[in-house]
Amino acid sequence: MTQIRFALAQIDTCVGDLDANADKIMRYVHLAAKGRAQVVVFPEMTLTGYPIEDLALRRTFRQAAWDKANWLATELAADGLGDLYVAVGTVGTDHASDKPKNRMVVLHDGVVWAGYDKHFLPNYGVFDEFRIFTAGERSVVLDIDGVRVGVAICEDIWQDGGPVAELAGRGIDVLMTMNGSPYEEGKTHVRYDLAVRRADEVHAPVIYVNQVGGQDDLVFDGGSFVVDADGTLLARAPMFMEHLGFFDFDADAERQGAGEIAPELDPDEEVYTACVLGLKDYMAKNRFKGVCLGLSGGIDSALVAAMAADACGGEHVQGISMPSMYSSDGSKDDAADLAANLGAKYDVQPIEPLFVSYQKQLDLEGVAAENLQARIRGVIVMAYSNAKGLLALATGNKSELACGYSTIYGDAVGGYAPIKDLLKTRVWELSRWRNKAAAAGVGIGGLGIVGNERSGAGTPLPGGVMIPVNSIEKAPSAELRPGQKDSDSLPEYALLDQVLAAYIEHAHGRADLLADGFDAKTVDTVMRLVDRAEWKRRQYPLGPKVTALAFGRDRRLPITNAFRE
Amino acid sequence: MTQIRFALAQIDTCVGDLDANADKIMRYVHLAAKGRAQVVVFPEMTLTGYPIEDLALRRTFRQAAWDKANWLATELAADGLGDLYVAVGTVGTDHASDKPKNRMVVLHDGVVWAGYDKHFLPNYGVFDEFRIFTAGERSVVLDIDGVRVGVAICEDIWQDGGPVAELAGRGIDVLMTMNGSPYEEGKTHVRYDLAVRRADEVHAPVIYVNQVGGQDDLVFDGGSFVVDADGTLLARAPMFMEHLGFFDFDADAERQGAGEIAPELDPDEEVYTACVLGLKDYMAKNRFKGVCLGLSGGIDSALVAAMAADACGGEHVQGISMPSMYSSDGSKDDAADLAANLGAKYDVQPIEPLFVSYQKQLDLEGVAAENLQARIRGVIVMAYSNAKGLLALATGNKSELACGYSTIYGDAVGGYAPIKDLLKTRVWELSRWRNKAAAAGVGIGGLGIVGNERSGAGTPLPGGVMIPVNSIEKAPSAELRPGQKDSDSLPEYALLDQVLAAYIEHAHGRADLLADGFDAKTVDTVMRLVDRAEWKRRQYPLGPKVTALAFGRDRRLPITNAFRE
Repeated sequence: MTQIRFALAQIDTCVGDLDANADKIMRYVHLAAKGRAQVVVFPEMTLTGYPIEDLALRRTFRQAAWDKANWLATELAADGLGDLYVAVGTVGTDHASDKPKNRMVVLHDGVVWAGYDKHFLPNYGVFDEFRIFTAGERSVVLDIDGVRVGVAICEDIWQDGGPVAELAGRGIDVLMTMNGSPYEEGKTHVRYDLAVRRADEVHAPVIYVNQVGGQDDLVFDGGSFVVDADGTLLARAPMFMEHLGFFDFDADAERQGAGEIAPELDPDEEVYTACVLGLKDYMAKNRFKGVCLGLSGGIDSALVAAMAADACGGEHVQGISMPSMYSSDGSKDDAADLAANLGAKYDVQPIEPLFVSYQKQLDLEGVAAENLQARIRGVIVMAYSNAKGLLALATGNKSELACGYSTIYGDAVGGYAPIKDLLKTRVWELSRWRNKAAAAGVGIGGLGIVGNERSGAGTPLPGGVMIPVNSIEKAPSAELRPGQKDSDSLPEYALLDQVLAAYIEHAHGRADLLADGFDAKTVDTVMRLVDRAEWKRRQYPLGPKVTALAFGRDRRLPITNAFRE
Repeated sequence: MTQIRFALAQIDTCVGDLDANADKIMRYVHLAAKGRAQVVVFPEMTLTGYPIEDLALRRTFRQAAWDKANWLATELAADGLGDLYVAVGTVGTDHASDKPKNRMVVLHDGVVWAGYDKHFLPNYGVFDEFRIFTAGERSVVLDIDGVRVGVAICEDIWQDGGPVAELAGRGIDVLMTMNGSPYEEGKTHVRYDLAVRRADEVHAPVIYVNQVGGQDDLVFDGGSFVVDADGTLLARAPMFMEHLGFFDFDADAERQGAGEIAPELDPDEEVYTACVLGLKDYMAKNRFKGVCLGLSGGIDSALVAAMAADACGGEHVQGISMPSMYSSDGSKDDAADLAANLGAKYDVQPIEPLFVSYQKQLDLEGVAAENLQARIRGVIVMAYSNAKGLLALATGNKSELACGYSTIYGDAVGGYAPIKDLLKTRVWELSRWRNKAAAAGVGIGGLGIVGNERSGAGTPLPGGVMIPVNSIEKAPSAELRPGQKDSDSLPEYALLDQVLAAYIEHAHGRADLLADGFDAKTVDTVMRLVDRAEWKRRQYPLGPKVTALAFGRDRRLPITNAFRE
C-alpha cells in the first residue's frame, strides 16, 4: 500500500527578496517535515516572488536565483530533509536563447532537479508573460515512490491541450500544480470548476497551491485546495493568510480521504480583506510602518482609514482633517469621530489661510479654484508623508477615477490607493459590512490576514462602531464650492456604476450599452467622461522616446522589488 | 515594357480618428494620382492610427474601421481613382476567434480587398502586439499589371523566416512594406541594413514606407526609402515631416533608377526635432493650443521652452518664473532673457509668501521643506494650466528622473515631458546645437516638421540667440537651499550618465558594470538611486485589483484616442 503525504505551502513572498523567500521556504519545509509530509508544494515563482516582470531579463538576477536554489537544496540536505521532494517555483534560463523561463524545480537529496518549464504564458489582463518568458515544451512526470506525479504551472491548466493533455495521455496518479493566481471577485469557483475539469481529464486528484499576499497592484488570495479525480473537494486552505495544509494520497484507494476545508467568506468580507491585505503587504514589503491620509468626513476616506487601521493598527494611522470655508460642521465632526473610533492620530490643518495666500497671487475662478483647494490638501498630505516617513494613501474610488472626478496632484496624490478598484456603490456596501462585523466583535486588525492562524478578535472598537453612520448615509459631495453635490456633475451612482461596469469591465461599446437598456444621454455622458480621463488616471507626464530604452512602456519593473544586485 | 509608379505616402495619423485619417488618405491618393502613380502605399494601421493598444479589442471600433475602409474604396472609385491600388493599414477581425488582426487592405475598383495580416507580432520594448492581435499565416503576392508585388508589415521584415522567406520562395518583383517604426537614435541605418538584407533575400527592390508623427510617448520619424535588389539606396524621404515620394519600377531593367534622396540630419538636430515633433503632435492631437511651464533659469526648463516655441510658436508659450528666497539673481535674469528671446509670455510668481504660509502651519525641515517649494510651484503651474487651458510641461531630464532627483507632484507635474528621455549631458549638447542653428538663421519654428515641405526659416531670433549661454554653462542646482548643487547628491553628470546608459539602456547588472570599469561606490550609489525611484517615475498610486477589469495594468488604452463610439 503506497501512501504519500503532500504538504501545500501557501506562502507570501516578496519580489526580488531571494534571501527572505528562501528562509521562508526553509521554515515551511521544516514544518511540513514535522507534519510527516514527503512532498512539499510551493506557489509559482516562490523563490523570486511573482510577478517579476522585466526583472526576469536581468542576467545577474537569474544567476542569483539559481545560486539560491542550490543553497536551499544543500541546506535542506544538511538539515536532514534531503529525502523530501520540495517543489519550488523560480526563474530559469533557456540556454539556447539566453531567455528566461518560468520554472518549477524539485529540491531533493541536496540537488536541484532540472524541473519543468511553464508551457502556456498568459499575455492578457494583468499578465505579460509571453513578453518575458520562453515557453517550455515538455511535460514532466515525477516518480515518487512509484506514484506518478504530473506537474503544471498555473496557466497550463487554464488552456486546453498542452502539458495537461500530454499528462492525460501518459497516465498519472496525481496532478500537482503551483499557481500565482491573482484575486478577483468570484474567482474561487472558477478555479474549482477548472480543477474539476482537469481532474476528469487526467483521471486523478488535482493539487492546487496558490500564492497569498499583495504585490504592487495585485493581491493573491491563496485558497489552495485539492479535488479528487471525481471532482469532490477534499481540502481547502483559508483565503488571505499563509497556511500549511496536507493531503494524503493513497495509491490503492478508489476515492481519497477528505481533510480540512476552510469555510467560504462572505463576498463583502472577501473584497474588504483583499484590500486590507494589499495595503498591509505593500507597506511591509516597502518598509512603511504607518500611513497618512486626508479625512474629509466623507465615505471614501473613512473606508480607507478603516482598512488602514485593519492593516497596521489605528495608532499607525495619521488622519489629517483639512477643512475649507466650504466644509460643513457635520463633515468635520464625522472625521473626528472616525479618528476617535480607530484610535488614529488626528490633526486639523485648515486650508483657508493657504487658499487666501494663493488667491492673492493667482485670483482663480471656477474649476481652477476648486482644484486649488484639492492641491493644497495634496501638498499637506505629502508634507506629512515626507516629514514622518508615512505612506500617503489616496482615497479615490473607481467611479470617480473612471470619470476623472478628482484633481490630479490633489486628492489623487499618494503611494497607494486602497479602494481604487471599488465602485462607489461597493464602497458603501463594504462600509456597512465592516460596521456589521465591528458590531459582531471584529475589532481593528481582527481579520487575521497573513500568518498561520487567525490573530484573534483584534483591538476592540469603542461602542462596536468603526465608520460613522453619517459618513455612509449623507449625499456625497466634494465640498469645493457651496452646496456642491457629486450628482451635479455625475449621474446618480446607482446608475453610473452599472454603466461603468458594462463599459469598462465588459468592454461594451456604445451600441452594446444601448442594447443593455441604458439611455443614450447617460451612455454618451459616461463614455465621454471615461475616455477623457485616461491621462488623469496615469498622472505621470508622457514624453517622447528617443533612446533604445526609455522609462515607461519599454522598461517594466515591479515597484516592490527587493533585488539589489 | 512594364513600368509601375509607386507612391510612398509618409503621413501622420491620429489614433482613433477614423474620419480625419480617411480624409488624409483621400488627399494623398489624389496627390499620388496627380503624380501619375498606379500604386499608393501608406504606413502600418493608417486608418486606425498606430499603436492602438487595447482599442483593437473594442468590437465597435473594428466595425467602424471596416465601414470607413469601404467608404474610402467607394469614394475613390467615385472620384475616378478606382484604377489605383491603394495599400492601407487597418485593424481586421479573425472571424474564427473574433480577435483583432493587424491588417493591410488594398482599395481598388471601389472594393476593399481582403489583404494581408501581419505575421510577426512584436512583444518587446514598446510593443505589445502579441497581447492584442492574432497572427496572420499566409503570405500575399499582388499581381499588378503582371508585376508580382509581395507585401509585408513592419516586424515581418525584422524576423527571419515567415512571410518574407515564403515570398522569396514564391518569387516576387518588388517587396512593398508598410511600417510603424518608432524613432530611436541611430535607427535609420539599422533599417537600411535590414532592408538590404531582405532585398537580397527576395532578389527584388524593397519599398519601406514609415509613419511620421508623435503618438503619446512615441515619435515616428518617417524617413521612408527604397533600396534596389542589390542594396543601392534609390530614394529617401525626409525625416519628421509628411512626404509623398515616388518610385518607378521597371520590370525589364536590371537596376532601377534613383529618385530623390533627402540628406541625413545631424545627430543632435535629429533628436531635437524628434522631441519637438512629439510635443507638437501631442498638442495637436489633444487640442492644446499653448503650453505653460516653470522657468527657473536652469538648462532643463530653458531647453523645454525652446522646444515648445519651436513646436507652437513663442507666443503660445507661457513661462512662469517662481523665485524663492534661494533663487539667485542670475537665475531670474536668465529666465527673463530666455522668455524675451522666445517672445514668450512671462509672469513672475514669487513663492516665498506661500512658503511662509505653509510653514506657519507645518514647520517642515530638510527634504520635506525642499519638496514643499517644488510642490508650491507645481500647484502654480497647474493653476495656469487649468485657468488658461494650457498643456503643463514637465521639465525633468532622464538623469534626474532615473535617480529620483525630483519632487513627485512638484517639478514633475505636467501633461507632457519633452526631455524625459534625454540624459543631462545630452540636454547640454542639444542646447548648444539649437543655439548654433539659431546663429545660422534657423528661427523659432524653422525646423519645418510635419507638412509636405519645410516651412522656411521660422520667426527670427533677436541676436540669433535662443538659450542664454549662462543657463548652459553654470553648475546645475535645484536652488532649494542655500548653495545647493546637484553634485552634492549625485555623481558628476559626465560619469553618472555613462553608468545610467549602461545600467538602464543596456540592462547591465552590478557585475557587468564593474567589468565596464566603473568603481564600486559609484555603481552602488547609482543602482540604489535608480531602483528606489521606480515608483516615483510612475507617480500614480497603485491599488489592489479586486474586479475583473481594474484600471492600470489590465486595461491599456492610448492617451491620445479620438474614437468616440
